[in-house]
Amino acid sequence: MKAQQSCFIGFEQEFEESKAVLFGAPFDGTTSFKPGARFASSAMREDSWAIESYSPYFDKDLEDLNLFDYGDLELPFGDKKTALRIIQEHVQQIIDANKIPIMIGGEHLVSLAPVKALSKKYDDLNIIHFDAHTDLRKDYLGEALSHATVLRRIYDQVGDNKVNQFCIRSGLKEEFEWAKEHTHLEKFTYKTLPDCVKRLENKPVYITIDLDVLDPSVFPGTGTPEPGGIDFHEMLDIINILSKLNNVVGMDVVELSPKFDASGVSTAVACKTLRELVLATIKN
Amino acid sequence: MKAQQSCFIGFEQEFEESKAVLFGAPFDGTTSFKPGARFASSAMREDSWAIESYSPYFDKDLEDLNLFDYGDLELPFGDKKTALRIIQEHVQQIIDANKIPIMIGGEHLVSLAPVKALSKKYDDLNIIHFDAHTDLRKDYLGEALSHATVLRRIYDQVGDNKVNQFCIRSGLKEEFEWAKEHTHLEKFTYKTLPDCVKRLENKPVYITIDLDVLDPSVFPGTGTPEPGGIDFHEMLDIINILSKLNNVVGMDVVELSPKFDASGVSTAVACKTLRELVLATIKN
Amino acid sequence: MKAQQSCFIGFEQEFEESKAVLFGAPFDGTTSFKPGARFASSAMREDSWAIESYSPYFDKDLEDLNLFDYGDLELPFGDKKTALRIIQEHVQQIIDANKIPIMIGGEHLVSLAPVKALSKKYDDLNIIHFDAHTDLRKDYLGEALSHATVLRRIYDQVGDNKVNQFCIRSGLKEEFEWAKEHTHLEKFTYKTLPDCVKRLENKPVYITIDLDVLDPSVFPGTGTPEPGGIDFHEMLDIINILSKLNNVVGMDVVELSPKFDASGVSTAVACKTLRELVLATIKN
Amino acid sequence: MKAQQSCFIGFEQEFEESKAVLFGAPFDGTTSFKPGARFASSAMREDSWAIESYSPYFDKDLEDLNLFDYGDLELPFGDKKTALRIIQEHVQQIIDANKIPIMIGGEHLVSLAPVKALSKKYDDLNIIHFDAHTDLRKDYLGEALSHATVLRRIYDQVGDNKVNQFCIRSGLKEEFEWAKEHTHLEKFTYKTLPDCVKRLENKPVYITIDLDVLDPSVFPGTGTPEPGGIDFHEMLDIINILSKLNNVVGMDVVELSPKFDASGVSTAVACKTLRELVLATIKN
Amino acid sequence: MKAQQSCFIGFEQEFEESKAVLFGAPFDGTTSFKPGARFASSAMREDSWAIESYSPYFDKDLEDLNLFDYGDLELPFGDKKTALRIIQEHVQQIIDANKIPIMIGGEHLVSLAPVKALSKKYDDLNIIHFDAHTDLRKDYLGEALSHATVLRRIYDQVGDNKVNQFCIRSGLKEEFEWAKEHTHLEKFTYKTLPDCVKRLENKPVYITIDLDVLDPSVFPGTGTPEPGGIDFHEMLDIINILSKLNNVVGMDVVELSPKFDASGVSTAVACKTLRELVLATIKN
Amino acid sequence: MKAQQSCFIGFEQEFEESKAVLFGAPFDGTTSFKPGARFASSAMREDSWAIESYSPYFDKDLEDLNLFDYGDLELPFGDKKTALRIIQEHVQQIIDANKIPIMIGGEHLVSLAPVKALSKKYDDLNIIHFDAHTDLRKDYLGEALSHATVLRRIYDQVGDNKVNQFCIRSGLKEEFEWAKEHTHLEKFTYKTLPDCVKRLENKPVYITIDLDVLDPSVFPGTGTPEPGGIDFHEMLDIINILSKLNNVVGMDVVELSPKFDASGVSTAVACKTLRELVLATIKN
Repeated sequence: MKAQQSCFIGFEQEFEESKAVLFGAPFDGTTSFKPGARFASSAMREDSWAIESYSPYFDKDLEDLNLFDYGDLELPFGDKKTALRIIQEHVQQIIDANKIPIMIGGEHLVSLAPVKALSKKYDDLNIIHFDAHTDLRKDYLGEALSHATVLRRIYDQVGDNKVNQFCIRSGLKEEFEWAKEHTHLEKFTYKTLPDCVKRLENKPVYITIDLDVLDPSVFPGTGTPEPGGIDFHEMLDIINILSKLNNVVGMDVVELSPKFDASGVSTAVACKTLRELVLATIKN
Repeated sequence: MKAQQSCFIGFEQEFEESKAVLFGAPFDGTTSFKPGARFASSAMREDSWAIESYSPYFDKDLEDLNLFDYGDLELPFGDKKTALRIIQEHVQQIIDANKIPIMIGGEHLVSLAPVKALSKKYDDLNIIHFDAHTDLRKDYLGEALSHATVLRRIYDQVGDNKVNQFCIRSGLKEEFEWAKEHTHLEKFTYKTLPDCVKRLENKPVYITIDLDVLDPSVFPGTGTPEPGGIDFHEMLDIINILSKLNNVVGMDVVELSPKFDASGVSTAVACKTLRELVLATIKN
Repeated sequence: MKAQQSCFIGFEQEFEESKAVLFGAPFDGTTSFKPGARFASSAMREDSWAIESYSPYFDKDLEDLNLFDYGDLELPFGDKKTALRIIQEHVQQIIDANKIPIMIGGEHLVSLAPVKALSKKYDDLNIIHFDAHTDLRKDYLGEALSHATVLRRIYDQVGDNKVNQFCIRSGLKEEFEWAKEHTHLEKFTYKTLPDCVKRLENKPVYITIDLDVLDPSVFPGTGTPEPGGIDFHEMLDIINILSKLNNVVGMDVVELSPKFDASGVSTAVACKTLRELVLATIKN
Repeated sequence: MKAQQSCFIGFEQEFEESKAVLFGAPFDGTTSFKPGARFASSAMREDSWAIESYSPYFDKDLEDLNLFDYGDLELPFGDKKTALRIIQEHVQQIIDANKIPIMIGGEHLVSLAPVKALSKKYDDLNIIHFDAHTDLRKDYLGEALSHATVLRRIYDQVGDNKVNQFCIRSGLKEEFEWAKEHTHLEKFTYKTLPDCVKRLENKPVYITIDLDVLDPSVFPGTGTPEPGGIDFHEMLDIINILSKLNNVVGMDVVELSPKFDASGVSTAVACKTLRELVLATIKN
Repeated sequence: MKAQQSCFIGFEQEFEESKAVLFGAPFDGTTSFKPGARFASSAMREDSWAIESYSPYFDKDLEDLNLFDYGDLELPFGDKKTALRIIQEHVQQIIDANKIPIMIGGEHLVSLAPVKALSKKYDDLNIIHFDAHTDLRKDYLGEALSHATVLRRIYDQVGDNKVNQFCIRSGLKEEFEWAKEHTHLEKFTYKTLPDCVKRLENKPVYITIDLDVLDPSVFPGTGTPEPGGIDFHEMLDIINILSKLNNVVGMDVVELSPKFDASGVSTAVACKTLRELVLATIKN
Repeated sequence: MKAQQSCFIGFEQEFEESKAVLFGAPFDGTTSFKPGARFASSAMREDSWAIESYSPYFDKDLEDLNLFDYGDLELPFGDKKTALRIIQEHVQQIIDANKIPIMIGGEHLVSLAPVKALSKKYDDLNIIHFDAHTDLRKDYLGEALSHATVLRRIYDQVGDNKVNQFCIRSGLKEEFEWAKEHTHLEKFTYKTLPDCVKRLENKPVYITIDLDVLDPSVFPGTGTPEPGGIDFHEMLDIINILSKLNNVVGMDVVELSPKFDASGVSTAVACKTLRELVLATIKN
C-alpha cells in the first residue's frame, strides 16, 4: 500500500521524466498589509482538482506535458535571506537538470530567487511582469528586500531594459519616474505586450505574475487589493499573447492569499491562470 | 390570526389562480466539490425582499403576473433516485394543472426531473442550457446520475439536436467531441443564441440556467466556480433575447450555494436573474 | 510623547490650514435590509494606508492638497433626527470656515444633512447623484426620513431640476414616473453626465455617491446589493468627467458596510474612489 | 396544492387551537455596537429543524403542546416608537385570546412592548431577567428608549422590587448603585434564582432572556459580546429552576445576531434555549 | 528530487513498517443539515503541523509509534453503497496486514464500513461510541443507510449489548426507548465509561468518536451542532480512561466540517483529539 | 476644530499626567502558522468601546487611573531586529519618564523588547508568563529570534529561576526537560500561582500573557490555537491573584489575531482581559 500523493492536477509525473517542475514557496514575511500568501500553494494544490486538466481555450491537456509537482519548500518566516537562499538552491537543482521551474508564491519577494538562479545561466534574461504595483522602491521602511522592492532587486540582477511591466496602477510618483529610465512600464493596460513578445520571441524570458494585477472583483484573496485591474478574459488574452514566446525559462504566480477569500474563488482563478500559463508556454 | 407566509417577492397568489408555480428542490447529493446548493431556495426566498418586484429593464412587475410559491420539497440527500422521483411527481402535478413549473435548485442534477415530466407532455421538447460546464459525461466515477452527467441524461430524454448549450468553458475533451455530434454547444459565448431562439420561437422550450455560467466575480457562491464567465449585463442581454420565445414550458436556476458567499451577493444575483427570467418568458 | 493620530491617508493637515475637511457619519438606523454602514469610516481610515496617496490616473497626490480628517461624529443610532442635526451642525462649522465638507457615511440618509447646510449658503445648489436605487419614495413604511427617501428629501431642499441621478437600476414604478417630472434621472448608465457637468460647470455642486452604484462583484460590502452596476473603470471614468466641475462645494461616499465583505475589497474600492474623487474635484 | 409553511419546529398548530403563540420582532434600531438582531427569528425558524422537537432533558416534546408560530412582524427600523406600538398591539391580540406570547427579538428594547401589554392585564406582573448587562440607564446618548435602558423602562411599568436580574456582569457604576434600591440584581451568578422562583411560584411572571448572558464562547453571535458569562449547562440548570413557576404569562429570547456567527452555532443555542424554556414553563 | 509527502504529523512511516494506518474517508452524501465533512481529512492533515507530535499529557510522542498515513480514498458522493464498499475493502487490506485502521470521516455513516470488516475478523467486536446524537433510527426519510441510522446499522452487525454510547443528548423518544433494550446508552455524561472500559479491557474494541459530542463552543465546525456537550478537558479525561483498553482494533473520528469554522479551531480540536486517542490506545 | 482621538476606552489622559502608557507593537513577522497578530491593537482600540471602563469585579474604573494610549509603533515586518530595537527604545522612553509600559502585541516575540529595557533598570526583574506553549526553543528553523523562542531569549536576559510559566500545554519534550532546570513551569494549570505571587509580592515583575493560554473556545482568534486551555472565569481568577503584586513594572497581552475570529469575540476577550489586568496591577 503506497500513500496517495497530493499534487496539482496534471502534474503527476516523476521528476526525472518531467519537462517542468512545480513547487511552492510559502513565504510572506515582508508583506506590509495583510499576510497569508504562505497558504497559497497548498490551497491551489487542493482546489486544482475542481478544474479540469484540459483547456478548451488551447485544446490542450496538462496530462500531455510531462509535469512534476515537488510540493512545498520549508522556509523560515522570520528570515528572508535564508528563505531566498533555499528557494534559489532549489531552482538551481531544477535548472541543472534542464527543467523549467514553475513557482507558486508566497509574496512577490520570492520571485527574486529564481531570477538570481536563472540570470547566472542566461546572460540575456528578460522579465515579463504583470502587477498592480510598481514594486520598484529602492527600499521599504529601510528594508532592501521586500515585496515592495522586488522588481528593483530583479532589475539589479538583469539590468536596464530587461524588465517589462504591464498593467501597473499603483506606486509612488518617484517609482514611475525611475521606471522611465530603466524599465519598460505600461500603466493600466498591456497594449504593448504583443510588441514586447515579438521582440523577446526567442530570448530567454522569465514570467512573473503578481495575481493582484487582476481586479479585486475577480481576485479578492490577496494581501494588497488594488481596484481597477484587469478581468479574467484579459488575463486569458495576455496568456494567449505569451504563447508566442519560444523560450520561457521559468515562471511564477504570486500573492494569492486564500484565507482572505472564503468563497475559494481567488484560488480557482489562480489555478486556472497557472494551467493556461503552463499550456501556453511549455512546449512538448 | 393567520401565520405570515414566507415566499419569493411577487409570488403571492394562490395555486389555483396562478399561471406559474415556483418551488425549491434542495438536493445536492452528487455535488463533487463543495456541497451546499440545498440552501439556495430558502436563502433566495428571504433575500428576494431586498430587490423590488418591479423591473425597470422590462418595465414590468411580478405582481402583475399570477405567481405562486409552493415552498420547498422535502428530499432525501442520500438517495438521488427517490429525490428525482419526488421532484418529477411534483412537476407532473403542476403541468397537469396547466401551469408552468419554475424550479430553484439544488445542484444541476435536479433539472432532469422536470425535463422527464415535460418530455412526456411535449414530443418536441427543446432545451436551452447556460452553464460553465458541459455536464455531458456518460457517468461520473461510475454514477450515471450526477451533476456532471445531467445534460447527457437530459439528452437521453429529448434526443439529438434538442439540447442547446451556451457559454460552456469547461469539460473533458471527449465531452466537447461528443457534443459536436449530438447537441448544439457554443463555447465561451452566446453569439448563436438569437438564431436558436428564432428557430425555437414557437416550440416548447425548457430553460435551465446553471448560475455558474456567470463569472465567479459576479457569482462566487457556487459549488464549482469556474473563472472566465459572463457578467451580469450579459445575463440581462441573454434574458432579453429569451423574451422572444413564445412557448417556455418550464425553467430552472440551479447551483447557488449561498453559504459560500457570506456577502449575500450571489443570492441577490440569483434572485434578480429569476425575476428577469420570469418577466421575460411568462406572458399574461 | 504625543499620541499617534489615526487618519485617512493624505489627510494629515490641521483644520486651520486645510482646504477640505473629512469626517465620518456612522449612522445606519434606517437601513432596511442589512445594517452595518456605521463601520465604514473607521474601516476606510485604517485600510486607506494600503493604497498610496499618489494617483497615477491624475498624476496628483493627496499630500499636495491641504486636507484634514476630523474623525467620526458620535451619533445616536435610534434617533435619526438628532443624528441629522448633529451632522448638519458639524457641516455648518466646516462651511463657516470656508472649507469643503467631505463625508463618509453611514447609510444614504446622512446625505440630507450637508445638503441642508449647504443649501442655506448656496441658493442654486445642484446635486449629482450616483446610485443603484432611486431613493425617491415619499415615505418608507411610514417613515419620511429613510435611506429609501433621502433623494426625495434632498429634492424638497433644492427643488425641481436640481437633482441629477445616474446609473439608477432599481425602484418602484412610481418613483421612476415621479422622477420624469422633477429630477434628471438616467437609468442604468451615465451617458448624459458630460452634458450635466458642462451645464453645472461653474455652479455650486454637491456630489453624493452611493457606492452600491457599483456592481456587487466590485463592491459586495453594502447593505442592499443590486446586481447590474458599473465596474471600477467606469467609476474612474465618471470621476474623470466630474473633474471638469469648478465649484464642488461638498461630497460624500455612503453605504459601505465593511463587515459584509470580509475580504476587505469593498473598503479598498471605497478608499480609492474617495481618493480619486478628492483629487478630481478639490483644486489647489 | 397548498404552500409549505415555514415555522419553528414543533410550532405547527393553528392559532385557535394553540396555547402559546410565537412571533418574531425583527427590530434592532437602537443597537449601539453591532446591529443584526433583526435576522434572528428567520434564522432560528430555519435552523430549528436541525434540532429535535423532543427534549431528553424534560422527556417532553414540543409537539405535545399546542403551539402556533405567527411568523414575523413588519417593523420600521428607523422608528422605535412605531415598532414598539406594533409589537404591543400584536401581544394584546394574543393575550386577549388567552394565549401566551413568546417573542424572538430583535434587540432587547423590544421586550418593553409585551411587558406594557401584560402589565395592563396583571397588576402584579413580575420580571425575571437574564443578561450580561444591567440595561438600567436612564437614557443612552439622550435616548430614553434604547437597548441599554430597556430594563429601566420596564421598571417604570412594574415598579420597585418586581424586576429580578441575574448573571449581570457589565454596566455603569451608577446602574449597579441604582439597582440596589429598585431591583433585585445578582452579579455574575444566579444563586438566588431558586428563592426568587419560590417567591414568585404562583404569581404572573414574564421571563426575558438576553442571550448574551451566555459566555461568548457559547454564543458569539450577538451585538455586544461580554466575556465571562454562563455556559450552556448553566442555562439548562436555570431553565430547570424556572420550570417550578406555575404562572408564566409571557417570555422572550433576544439579541441573537446570526450573521456574526457564520458557524450557525449561536442560532442552534438560541433554538435549544427556546425549546427548553417553552417545555419548562408552558404546561398542558 | 522526490516529491514532498503531505501527511498527518507523526504519521511518517511506510506502510510495511507501520503498526497503524490512517486514512481519510471524505464522504458526506447523507448529511441532512450542513454538508462539508468531506473536507475534514485534508484540513486535519494540513493543520496537524501546528500542533506538536509530543503530548505532555501522556509524555509520549507519535514519532515513537510506527504510523502510516495512506491519504484519502476516492469516494463517489452520490452513491453511498459504493462508498461504503470502497472503505470496507480498504480496511480489509489494513487488517489483513495486521495493522490497526484509523479513519478520519466524513460523516458518521462511514463508520459502518470498518465495523463490517472488523466484525468478520472478531466474533466479539465491541463498540464504544461518543456522540451528541443517538444515531439509532431504523431509517431516515426512507433511507436505511444514513448518518442518522449508522449506530443502528452497526448494531445490526454486532448485536445486543455490544454498542456502548456515551454523552448522548439528542434523538427521538423512540430511539432512547429502543436503546434501553439493545445498547448501553448513557445520556449527557460518561460516568459509566470506567466500568465499560474495565468490562471490555481485553476484548476487541472499535472506538467511534462523533466529534459533535463536544459542545459547539469547543467544536463549532460540524454539520449538526447540538449545544450542551462536553468540553475539551472532558475529552482528555475520556481518552485517559480509554487508555486502559488493551485491544483497540480500530477507531475513527468523524463529522468535522472545517469550512463551517473559519477560525480553524475545530480542526485543531480534531487533530489533538486524534493525537491523544492514538497515543492512548496504540501500544508499542 | 480638533481631530477626534481614537484610543482604548479609559486611556484618555495625556502622556505627562499618566501613570501608565499603552502602545501597540503590530509585528508578526516570525509567526509560523497563521499570521495576523499585527491587527490586534487597532481592533482592540476600536472594540474596547463596546465594553465599559468600569469593572464590577474590582469595583474600579479605568477612568480613575491616569492612563495614556500612545497608539501604534510603525514596525518593519520583514526585519525583526529593527522591530525589536524600535520597541525597546519606545519602552525606554516610557520608563525613563517613570511610567509603566503596557504593550499590545503582535506576536509573542515582541515581549523580548520591554524585558530588555526593564532588565537594565531592575537587577531583579521577574517574569510571570501565561501561555499554551513553552516558547523555550533554543532556535526555530535556525532562527534565534522567534515567537517559539521568546521565553528562552527572555531567560537569557533575566537568568535562572526568574521566569514563571503557567498553564503550559504544548511544547517539545526537550523544552519541558530544559525548563525543569531553569524556569518555574507549571503544566496545564496555575495552582502554584498564589505561592509565586506571594514570593514576588514586592519585587519588580513583568507580566506577559499570551492570550492563547485561553481555550480556543474562548479565544479562537489566534495564530496557533491549542485546545485544552483555561476559560475566562479562570483568567479572571488569575488576574485576581495577580492583584496582590505590589510592583508590576510592565505588562503585555499578545497573540490576538482578530481577522481569524470574524465574530469579534476574541477581541472582546482581549479587551476585557487588558482592562482587568490594568485595574488589578496599576495602583493609584
